[in-house]
Amino acid sequence: MIGFEHIRRMSRISPSKIVFLIIDGLGGLPHPETGKTELESARKPNLNHIARNSICGLIDPVGPGITPGSAPGHLAIFGYDPVQYHIGRGVMEALGIDVELKPDDIAARGNFCTVDDKGIITHRRAGRISTDKNTVLCRLLSHIAVEGVEMSVLPVKEHRFVLILRGEALSPELGDSDPQQLGQAPKKIEALSPQARKTAEIANEFVSQAAGLLQGKSPANMVLLRGFSRRPHVPSISEIYKLKPAAIAAYPMYRGLARLVGMKVLPGDESITEQLSSLHRHYAKHDFFFIHFKSTDARGEDGDFEAKVQAIEELDKALPALLELDPDVLVVTGDHSTPATLAMHSWHPVPFMLKSKWCRPDNVAEFSEQACLVGGMGRFPATEIMPLAMANALKLDKFGA
Amino acid sequence: MIGFEHIRRMSRISPSKIVFLIIDGLGGLPHPETGKTELESARKPNLNHIARNSICGLIDPVGPGITPGSAPGHLAIFGYDPVQYHIGRGVMEALGIDVELKPDDIAARGNFCTVDDKGIITHRRAGRISTDKNTVLCRLLSHIAVEGVEMSVLPVKEHRFVLILRGEALSPELGDSDPQQLGQAPKKIEALSPQARKTAEIANEFVSQAAGLLQGKSPANMVLLRGFSRRPHVPSISEIYKLKPAAIAAYPMYRGLARLVGMKVLPGDESITEQLSSLHRHYAKHDFFFIHFKSTDARGEDGDFEAKVQAIEELDKALPALLELDPDVLVVTGDHSTPATLAMHSWHPVPFMLKSKWCRPDNVAEFSEQACLVGGMGRFPATEIMPLAMANALKLDKFGA
Repeated sequence: MIGFEHIRRMSRISPSKIVFLIIDGLGGLPHPETGKTELESARKPNLNHIARNSICGLIDPVGPGITPGSAPGHLAIFGYDPVQYHIGRGVMEALGIDVELKPDDIAARGNFCTVDDKGIITHRRAGRISTDKNTVLCRLLSHIAVEGVEMSVLPVKEHRFVLILRGEALSPELGDSDPQQLGQAPKKIEALSPQARKTAEIANEFVSQAAGLLQGKSPANMVLLRGFSRRPHVPSISEIYKLKPAAIAAYPMYRGLARLVGMKVLPGDESITEQLSSLHRHYAKHDFFFIHFKSTDARGEDGDFEAKVQAIEELDKALPALLELDPDVLVVTGDHSTPATLAMHSWHPVPFMLKSKWCRPDNVAEFSEQACLVGGMGRFPATEIMPLAMANALKLDKFGA
Repeated sequence: MIGFEHIRRMSRISPSKIVFLIIDGLGGLPHPETGKTELESARKPNLNHIARNSICGLIDPVGPGITPGSAPGHLAIFGYDPVQYHIGRGVMEALGIDVELKPDDIAARGNFCTVDDKGIITHRRAGRISTDKNTVLCRLLSHIAVEGVEMSVLPVKEHRFVLILRGEALSPELGDSDPQQLGQAPKKIEALSPQARKTAEIANEFVSQAAGLLQGKSPANMVLLRGFSRRPHVPSISEIYKLKPAAIAAYPMYRGLARLVGMKVLPGDESITEQLSSLHRHYAKHDFFFIHFKSTDARGEDGDFEAKVQAIEELDKALPALLELDPDVLVVTGDHSTPATLAMHSWHPVPFMLKSKWCRPDNVAEFSEQACLVGGMGRFPATEIMPLAMANALKLDKFGA
């Protein structure tokens, strides 16, 4: 793939508008009875209409056989090599609660959990305590003090929290304390490199003080930490593509991701109708929009085939509000597949379509896994979407003389 | 892609012949009324006949979304990574007038332009002065002398010239003086690295002396320079593939490119009939031929859909002279798309076909964008054409034990 240094030189500011509609967990697998995927089962006249005027294909967010997390799935769509720009679990959790991380901050994902008298984990999520309870406990843990480091303990949701370490000469090269299974004691946090020794001591000291403060507070009488990480340096979308990008995403984590790549986060609550109305209100001020539709993934992870079909149909019904804006380039795809039959993210490539005046449409007449397979883009890496969208918006000059 | 060091080891000399027919700007976009591209609209029985006996596909010269200049488009077809082997604007211009550049020479593309009393650019091309006028002015600028450097000012066409700097310790890492827009003064040429400071001074001194010599010669009363560059070191086709390659190209720039990769340039004027007759005369002496057909690109850039269709039909009529030679491997493709509707080079993938006794033909019965989409090669990077052609010519040994 062509590097950002070239794209930066070739990119050009113009009035044309690019809209990315990202349908989370879009791809699926056939229902055992009908032989049709969720997308193939849904009534979706608007998506099909777009497909008929688009160039279609199937994207691999990371690579064949690789199941993407939400961060790599989105980063790839935004043009970043998801292997090079790795976002750790801790940083993801911090992004998810709109915490601004400084470049040297170390973030870890925390769970409140339950241990028995012998310190053996009996419940990794402390029976999913309430977020209110979580907030109270995080305030308690904020009393922990370790010399030479500033610590923040921030509640997320239910049993989840974020630990942030700020100080001199810290390193994120640490193992997890979370053994990710029951019947074991939390692990001692190991330094994975010599320069992480001091940070490992600090983290272990945090865990030890936390254990003291939580004593007797069963079910939340212990903490588990994992995914120590630092935010990667990511060149912003406006730096690379000279775009003025904006995001309309209902969930904090996607807003955090959008901010990480330099998008302005616009209002827009959980309903797609609200999101598209926000798009209308802000359409004049930006030239790139990322709209994130969540419920397809949530229903897929629930393993609820019918509900995922309905989520697609709900989205489709809202689309005329998007189509009437007639953006110069409209991309519709997903960050990964979440087949309801698997009830989890999966490695299957994701349907893709791009509509523009200049897209050389193919013969695809329906937006589905099978139909996109013979689309004009064929099967291709998601990281190629951004240059393609820029080209179709006539925002990319030619390469070389 | 497999590296040259492997190809070099696997390549084998044999009597089989490979012919590449490169149709410049071949790919197109549908006509708004008929829904058919230029290639789909043309009567082309010979191209279709080849397609039926070929393996077909669509190539990406640089990558999805990237619009190739002529140099990267051709280099990719000849097997060179067009991002790694970058050819600057100045070098391209020099290649275009058959100037032989030494490895350390620096070439820049020059424009004669018009500036007003305040030195502001009012016409970037000096009203496209005649080539004769240009030649006279270049002779005048040849009087410019700067210590420590040998300078050549060579006319190209209309307002275009090439400046070549030859001397010790020069560097091509220079900015442009051409601001590429009106209403500004020419920029001072900047050194983009410390070791380019001396060269920047020399270039600025050239511009300053040129301004003096051109005073009162409006419309051509100033010069603009851009694309300072040095010819890249390119391993030759005969080094990598053990071929004896030859080029039959009507335009100087393509002859220059062919020379850069080590091809012998054979005679052959602008008509395809002449080019194919040259091919016949020299067929015994080489085993690889690059035939360059230009007018499809020229008519596409004119935005003349009908004329591009006619150019394809003209080519098709001439093809029996090629087919009667029955080369062991015949590749027909283009260096990029030039849709008449866009009237410029574009990023769209380019139809490709390879005919050989060993090619495992697919079901494609027509040479067109739509038909090639479902060809046996699918969509693939142009850099893979050379190994494929070598294999089909039975000139490539197996890889590994």
